[in-house]
Amino acid sequence: MDRDSLLQLFDAVRRKRLSPDEALAKLRHMPFEDIEFAKVDHHRMLRNGMPEVILAKGKTPAQVAGIFAKLAKQKTNVLATRATAEQFRAVRKRAPKAEFRELARAIVLLQDHRTRGKGKIAVVSAGTSDIPVAEEAVVTAEAMGNEVEHFYDVGVAGIHRLLAHSKALAAARVVIVCAGMEGALPSVVGGLVGVPVIAVPTSVGYGASFDGLAALLGMLNSCASNVSVVNIDNGFGAGYVASMINRL
Amino acid sequence: MDRDSLLQLFDAVRRKRLSPDEALAKLRHMPFEDIEFAKVDHHRMLRNGMPEVILAKGKTPAQVAGIFAKLAKQKTNVLATRATAEQFRAVRKRAPKAEFRELARAIVLLQDHRTRGKGKIAVVSAGTSDIPVAEEAVVTAEAMGNEVEHFYDVGVAGIHRLLAHSKALAAARVVIVCAGMEGALPSVVGGLVGVPVIAVPTSVGYGASFDGLAALLGMLNSCASNVSVVNIDNGFGAGYVASMINRL
Amino acid sequence: MDRDSLLQLFDAVRRKRLSPDEALAKLRHMPFEDIEFAKVDHHRMLRNGMPEVILAKGKTPAQVAGIFAKLAKQKTNVLATRATAEQFRAVRKRAPKAEFRELARAIVLLQDHRTRGKGKIAVVSAGTSDIPVAEEAVVTAEAMGNEVEHFYDVGVAGIHRLLAHSKALAAARVVIVCAGMEGALPSVVGGLVGVPVIAVPTSVGYGASFDGLAALLGMLNSCASNVSVVNIDNGFGAGYVASMINRL
Amino acid sequence: MDRDSLLQLFDAVRRKRLSPDEALAKLRHMPFEDIEFAKVDHHRMLRNGMPEVILAKGKTPAQVAGIFAKLAKQKTNVLATRATAEQFRAVRKRAPKAEFRELARAIVLLQDHRTRGKGKIAVVSAGTSDIPVAEEAVVTAEAMGNEVEHFYDVGVAGIHRLLAHSKALAAARVVIVCAGMEGALPSVVGGLVGVPVIAVPTSVGYGASFDGLAALLGMLNSCASNVSVVNIDNGFGAGYVASMINRL
Amino acid sequence: MDRDSLLQLFDAVRRKRLSPDEALAKLRHMPFEDIEFAKVDHHRMLRNGMPEVILAKGKTPAQVAGIFAKLAKQKTNVLATRATAEQFRAVRKRAPKAEFRELARAIVLLQDHRTRGKGKIAVVSAGTSDIPVAEEAVVTAEAMGNEVEHFYDVGVAGIHRLLAHSKALAAARVVIVCAGMEGALPSVVGGLVGVPVIAVPTSVGYGASFDGLAALLGMLNSCASNVSVVNIDNGFGAGYVASMINRL
Amino acid sequence: MDRDSLLQLFDAVRRKRLSPDEALAKLRHMPFEDIEFAKVDHHRMLRNGMPEVILAKGKTPAQVAGIFAKLAKQKTNVLATRATAEQFRAVRKRAPKAEFRELARAIVLLQDHRTRGKGKIAVVSAGTSDIPVAEEAVVTAEAMGNEVEHFYDVGVAGIHRLLAHSKALAAARVVIVCAGMEGALPSVVGGLVGVPVIAVPTSVGYGASFDGLAALLGMLNSCASNVSVVNIDNGFGAGYVASMINRL
Amino acid sequence: MDRDSLLQLFDAVRRKRLSPDEALAKLRHMPFEDIEFAKVDHHRMLRNGMPEVILAKGKTPAQVAGIFAKLAKQKTNVLATRATAEQFRAVRKRAPKAEFRELARAIVLLQDHRTRGKGKIAVVSAGTSDIPVAEEAVVTAEAMGNEVEHFYDVGVAGIHRLLAHSKALAAARVVIVCAGMEGALPSVVGGLVGVPVIAVPTSVGYGASFDGLAALLGMLNSCASNVSVVNIDNGFGAGYVASMINRL
Amino acid sequence: MDRDSLLQLFDAVRRKRLSPDEALAKLRHMPFEDIEFAKVDHHRMLRNGMPEVILAKGKTPAQVAGIFAKLAKQKTNVLATRATAEQFRAVRKRAPKAEFRELARAIVLLQDHRTRGKGKIAVVSAGTSDIPVAEEAVVTAEAMGNEVEHFYDVGVAGIHRLLAHSKALAAARVVIVCAGMEGALPSVVGGLVGVPVIAVPTSVGYGASFDGLAALLGMLNSCASNVSVVNIDNGFGAGYVASMINRL
Repeated sequence: MDRDSLLQLFDAVRRKRLSPDEALAKLRHMPFEDIEFAKVDHHRMLRNGMPEVILAKGKTPAQVAGIFAKLAKQKTNVLATRATAEQFRAVRKRAPKAEFRELARAIVLLQDHRTRGKGKIAVVSAGTSDIPVAEEAVVTAEAMGNEVEHFYDVGVAGIHRLLAHSKALAAARVVIVCAGMEGALPSVVGGLVGVPVIAVPTSVGYGASFDGLAALLGMLNSCASNVSVVNIDNGFGAGYVASMINRL
Repeated sequence: MDRDSLLQLFDAVRRKRLSPDEALAKLRHMPFEDIEFAKVDHHRMLRNGMPEVILAKGKTPAQVAGIFAKLAKQKTNVLATRATAEQFRAVRKRAPKAEFRELARAIVLLQDHRTRGKGKIAVVSAGTSDIPVAEEAVVTAEAMGNEVEHFYDVGVAGIHRLLAHSKALAAARVVIVCAGMEGALPSVVGGLVGVPVIAVPTSVGYGASFDGLAALLGMLNSCASNVSVVNIDNGFGAGYVASMINRL
Repeated sequence: MDRDSLLQLFDAVRRKRLSPDEALAKLRHMPFEDIEFAKVDHHRMLRNGMPEVILAKGKTPAQVAGIFAKLAKQKTNVLATRATAEQFRAVRKRAPKAEFRELARAIVLLQDHRTRGKGKIAVVSAGTSDIPVAEEAVVTAEAMGNEVEHFYDVGVAGIHRLLAHSKALAAARVVIVCAGMEGALPSVVGGLVGVPVIAVPTSVGYGASFDGLAALLGMLNSCASNVSVVNIDNGFGAGYVASMINRL
Repeated sequence: MDRDSLLQLFDAVRRKRLSPDEALAKLRHMPFEDIEFAKVDHHRMLRNGMPEVILAKGKTPAQVAGIFAKLAKQKTNVLATRATAEQFRAVRKRAPKAEFRELARAIVLLQDHRTRGKGKIAVVSAGTSDIPVAEEAVVTAEAMGNEVEHFYDVGVAGIHRLLAHSKALAAARVVIVCAGMEGALPSVVGGLVGVPVIAVPTSVGYGASFDGLAALLGMLNSCASNVSVVNIDNGFGAGYVASMINRL
Repeated sequence: MDRDSLLQLFDAVRRKRLSPDEALAKLRHMPFEDIEFAKVDHHRMLRNGMPEVILAKGKTPAQVAGIFAKLAKQKTNVLATRATAEQFRAVRKRAPKAEFRELARAIVLLQDHRTRGKGKIAVVSAGTSDIPVAEEAVVTAEAMGNEVEHFYDVGVAGIHRLLAHSKALAAARVVIVCAGMEGALPSVVGGLVGVPVIAVPTSVGYGASFDGLAALLGMLNSCASNVSVVNIDNGFGAGYVASMINRL
Repeated sequence: MDRDSLLQLFDAVRRKRLSPDEALAKLRHMPFEDIEFAKVDHHRMLRNGMPEVILAKGKTPAQVAGIFAKLAKQKTNVLATRATAEQFRAVRKRAPKAEFRELARAIVLLQDHRTRGKGKIAVVSAGTSDIPVAEEAVVTAEAMGNEVEHFYDVGVAGIHRLLAHSKALAAARVVIVCAGMEGALPSVVGGLVGVPVIAVPTSVGYGASFDGLAALLGMLNSCASNVSVVNIDNGFGAGYVASMINRL
Repeated sequence: MDRDSLLQLFDAVRRKRLSPDEALAKLRHMPFEDIEFAKVDHHRMLRNGMPEVILAKGKTPAQVAGIFAKLAKQKTNVLATRATAEQFRAVRKRAPKAEFRELARAIVLLQDHRTRGKGKIAVVSAGTSDIPVAEEAVVTAEAMGNEVEHFYDVGVAGIHRLLAHSKALAAARVVIVCAGMEGALPSVVGGLVGVPVIAVPTSVGYGASFDGLAALLGMLNSCASNVSVVNIDNGFGAGYVASMINRL
Repeated sequence: MDRDSLLQLFDAVRRKRLSPDEALAKLRHMPFEDIEFAKVDHHRMLRNGMPEVILAKGKTPAQVAGIFAKLAKQKTNVLATRATAEQFRAVRKRAPKAEFRELARAIVLLQDHRTRGKGKIAVVSAGTSDIPVAEEAVVTAEAMGNEVEHFYDVGVAGIHRLLAHSKALAAARVVIVCAGMEGALPSVVGGLVGVPVIAVPTSVGYGASFDGLAALLGMLNSCASNVSVVNIDNGFGAGYVASMINRL
């Protein structure tokens, strides 16, 4: 369904060699794939204030800096996840306003400061080792225009530390919960709040944690019905899903 | 922190044997667990229009009917999941307005007809064998006060069948996608819509599907960032999460 | 891009309210998903002589018979896999020329006898217990217009039995190999022939065969480079892939 | 090292054909295995008040009754686990004082009523479906001479229900926690009490619970340091370990 | 339920604006989570002589030293697990009395020398490679005020080496058994002693040991009923559980 | 290399149209697979006194009886494994001297009573539930001409029961050890004897035994170097391997 | 069946000591294995234009260069997979016309430029990280004499990017699809084309991708019947199978 | 049962304070574990010509050299497995006659040259990458006094290469087969020989080989009944088991 054959079709209609009905029949049998619809995606994203995202892991500092600089020319926020200090130094030279969120292992350039989320997103983590994943969720949600509050080191073995924050948690519109080891925290949080909970298993643990598998299975089997789950260590995904919910 | 010791505390304050500061200090060191806070949960649920839910599987028809009848006395909707025709016959005797949604394997009594969802929930399934799980999601979302539209048998190997519905899908506020076998559908749907997608792996398949594991892993690794996942065959959980999102 | 809006577009061109260029620009921005492209698939299949296929498992005899009878009205071959004798009896009443291939657990109606494969397909099985899967591959390939030759009970622990057939195997254009337990046969066959080998792990075995997992992993790690693999017990898929190759 | 050769050895010493040193040297090189030491075990058990235990599963009613009757002749308590009502009917004919604990699927004959545990054992379960496993732990601990208190249906998604019992829990000397699905309860309980917690994963759940694997992994990765774990559904083992601790 | 609102509540009672009954009713509906109950945990630990524990792995020498020095100011013992010689050098500068237990990979500062265990804890290991895990259990139990005796290199393939110690083993009040590879040792030891056995699977082995999974599964399936299990390589957890039992 | 072309080749040599050297060169380039070498296998087996073996599982009584009767005409012993009483009744009608070994689930016809093993084979089992697998090994070894001694219910948790037999075990030329649950017994036996040990994991157990996987992994990781392993529940294979060793 | 005994056989026929029939009988009973049939394989490969292939991984630069140079003397193409730049530098010194395909991590020497494939092979990849595997398939197919077209970065979450190429895809005779993460792309492509699809799971992903396992399972469960699968990251195998199909 | 109490016992018999019967009764109730039976093991080994074995992996060069030198003082052969060149240099200084078998990664000192095996051990490997494991088996068997012949690079995809050696294989008394990837070779070899086959899965492969798991499962499911299996990469164990068989 390239430009030429479509123009010929319209020209035939214009010249009345084809009736609209005949043209429609022909159109239906033309291969429709060649139109450059791919750009549509891109445009929709821009309109919605989604940040441009780079997975920095596995790329050279120069590559990250190059892509970052190119995306930075647009008006959107730019986010590079799983980034290193070395990659940040390369990025900063070309995008001086970019910041490095060391805990989150993320480089972020905030150019679009509009708030898009309708409420607050709470990010909860079980242990201090889960903080990098939690922070990746925080920076993602911030780059997508949300107000974020975090509650760290409130694991289930010291349940009172968590309960001490339950009023604050109940004020959030979406809650992200990051936990490794047994991954029990989302179930407890899910029971405390009346909003959607996005659970992020982390690879924190050893032995029978099997790099996050134990936490993942725990969360999938949560007895709290308001919990859904993203991939192990996927702080970005949790931040993205939560942002999308918070815009509704 | 039972009633008596608390009354004594207040009485001591009233009699001025304790200053408010002293009473506060005492309160802090009392065991606080004995108050019947459990009821709070229950009340909040009632206020929010959540249905009462019974997992019928593993219960006798008499047991299901008994619990159902008791819950039916309240004003909420009542839902029994994984139910059989035999269980329904027992329920109907005690709750004549209850319906049996055969495909969904659910018994439902709709007593509260208020719409609570702000938009439409779309439920998509890959194959005809995934329909029972999809229907469980449908009936759950309906019992929670949502308008639901479904799109069945639109698996990825015939991508045009799915694309034919993409405008309708894009009109939903939340999308649930049920798929077994390779579990690819949520990724494709996730790319077509700009709203949260709840993915439900189903145990449909054989051999290396390992009873839904293949679909589950596929969905957790979705390249679409707006996808989160619930347990295998958990249509109820998907309907619940989607409803919670749709109320926001 | 429903019928009406397209007709309006063509009508506007016809009335010269829009130039072909303007119409093209408009067309590009219309949602294109609503056209009923799904039918295209269907038509292509018919033209290519692919059989209509029903997965009989999990359907009632009446359901299988109903679908079978409907498909039988077309000129294509009709195949029902994982079928029972009881389902066949129901089918036979409505499609008297249908046959039951008991070993293959398949009901087949051959109405299109054209040969579409350019060569012979060889189907090899390791043990007698693998024969049902092998026969499913055989009947699928036959229903798709291929000449098929089978070689059963030629497992690797008695390598001479296999070698006794190596000239015949070498004459095939595609080879399907079904094996359970250690799944070693495709590697040996792959080394004997110079054509593509489709390996089908079967769930034959016990203990550490883990319902075909051992055979599946063995085949995926085949040291013969001309081997590719389908799902456990997927005789139908192997027959389908082999047929598609044999038509080229 | 049978009786005869030992007697000969002693006789040789008595007759002074061998010095004590020579006899010792000879003794060291004799095969020492033939003495019937096996009985020692048996005697120690009897002295310690351990019950005799029969795994009823897989045995006929007649077999269970026969073994039960034989053991009942001793003064110990007798316990048959994973038993059916039918097996109980056979047992009752031969041991009329035996009781059937239906929820626990156990037949028990209490003949030795001495209390051997120094404190109370608490048995906690997450959901109602976990009760059979919890009851197996209860009956085992009772048959081993312990006072037992149970707390059922206090899963982590309704944390207040659990907290309402925390004072009672804190009074136990050992705590057993049974939970399926995500298996999070032992971690929370472990944080609430200052005594050993025996965690029992149950096979309650579906899909990604993988018959108790998710709960098992969760418990092994517990962030509470006072938790140790027994096999899936092993209520008997938990009751046994807890009893052994409670005797110390 | 912050300080101010509670003070106001007590003040109202004092001023008799509220009766005790009315105050109780109000109290019940206040959010109770904000009180700083978290400190309770902490205090209980101090009273019980539990050591303060730092997981040194993944922290810089400076971080470990900083936390260690801060905790050392209290009167409790301090333990850093999974520590390196480099971390120890940093710690020693700030806590000169700290020792490095190289085999256990632990830094320990013993300031509270009271014996809290009522009997002896035996620590048994199968092979020399299991010693680091066993030593972590030893140092943990010692830091928690226990007398510990160890029995190393007494694996089941040389059963006489183990039997040579059976009298000594039988004298322990709790036994910890560390084993990799097939993890068989806890079952044998469990049969030799009449006290609780804490089994620690180690990641010692290769190939089908799958980093300790084989040993873990073996221990969970132990035919000795007095065995419970902790995570792979979790010497700390085993020492902690054993200490808690030994205090009872 | 069929009969005809070979005869032509020899004929050409006979007629001196080809020299022996030329014939050899031609022979090398002929396809050699068509000769019926398969029979060679068969003959070798007959000469060696191997029994004919039928896997009865999955066959009808009539099928088992038919194959059994045919094989019984030869002079070898005949063995049907995984057989039922019903299959035996059908066999007995056609082979009246066949016996049913109920525990072993085997039908055996001993026609060749020559002893072929040079020593004794010991068969050891851990628990009573492992006996069917052990008995399958016993009957296989007997049918292959070996003297067999068994030692049942000597699991590792009561090590003295095993040690009581260690002299008898040490007298065997090959030892088979069957164990489920943790599968520890082969390691202990391996340390007691100086001959090859064939370990058979059984599917006895529940929960984390994962149908014999735990025992299998344990045995593969045995710390005794004289242990090798066969498939889960493969008593036949163990008996076969042991017999082959015992003939050497 | 060595040279001498065969010559003797022929000589006996020539001297008429054996009739052709007798000679045939003798031949059948001679061990046939010693003839150097191994060379046959080699020759067939050479005739068919298959490239010589070296797995460079795990070899020193000198080793790779040595083998490469030796193979380069023949007229075939030479391919070294999983190669490094350092290995290439060593190869180039001895085979100056060899090229390094950096993306594909392959060294290739094209000496035989004949086209052997009858149509075009399309290589599709889901993400940019999958390109190394896709390029390995490309270079393999090219070295085997095929025309190859690639379509990269057309993952399923942006389905329009893929659809934009569907006409071009439909023109291929075989399609290779490389995808990591959820591995959904082969199913979609399989539905778009009417030719065999070779699916290559890649190890791209993290967490629950389990190094390609998720993608592998997804592809094995593909709902498109024309898909078969090779090992994770096996671009070479996919290129080889596709080439073999394309020659038919 | 230490020396002193036994001497006292014998002395009492000698002094006739105890009759032999009384002494026997006393002996039975003494703890028998303290005798140093452990040395028995050691002596038996020395008598049998078993080599002393050191697992060098994870030890420093100095440690390996120290242990090696100590063991070298005895008359047995000494073997260090998984050793490095650096460890060898340290060993050579203290045991100048020690050799380094680089391919086998083993240091060996042959001091006892007696042949103890009654026949030849054949060691077969599938690919060149399996040779280190095969060589470990070779050096182990040689150090245990066996004549060994090896057959390398005879994988199943080129079955004629293996068949070319079948006469030589048939001459062995025990066969060891090492294979990675699909692990099919033991089944084929098992069918060619009439002696025990020890299968060694190797970790050679990638992707779905899962570090040798695929080969392990394949071998456990071998359709050849004379195959038993050792751990992944356990060349030492295979050499040990084969040697033990070959001595019988």
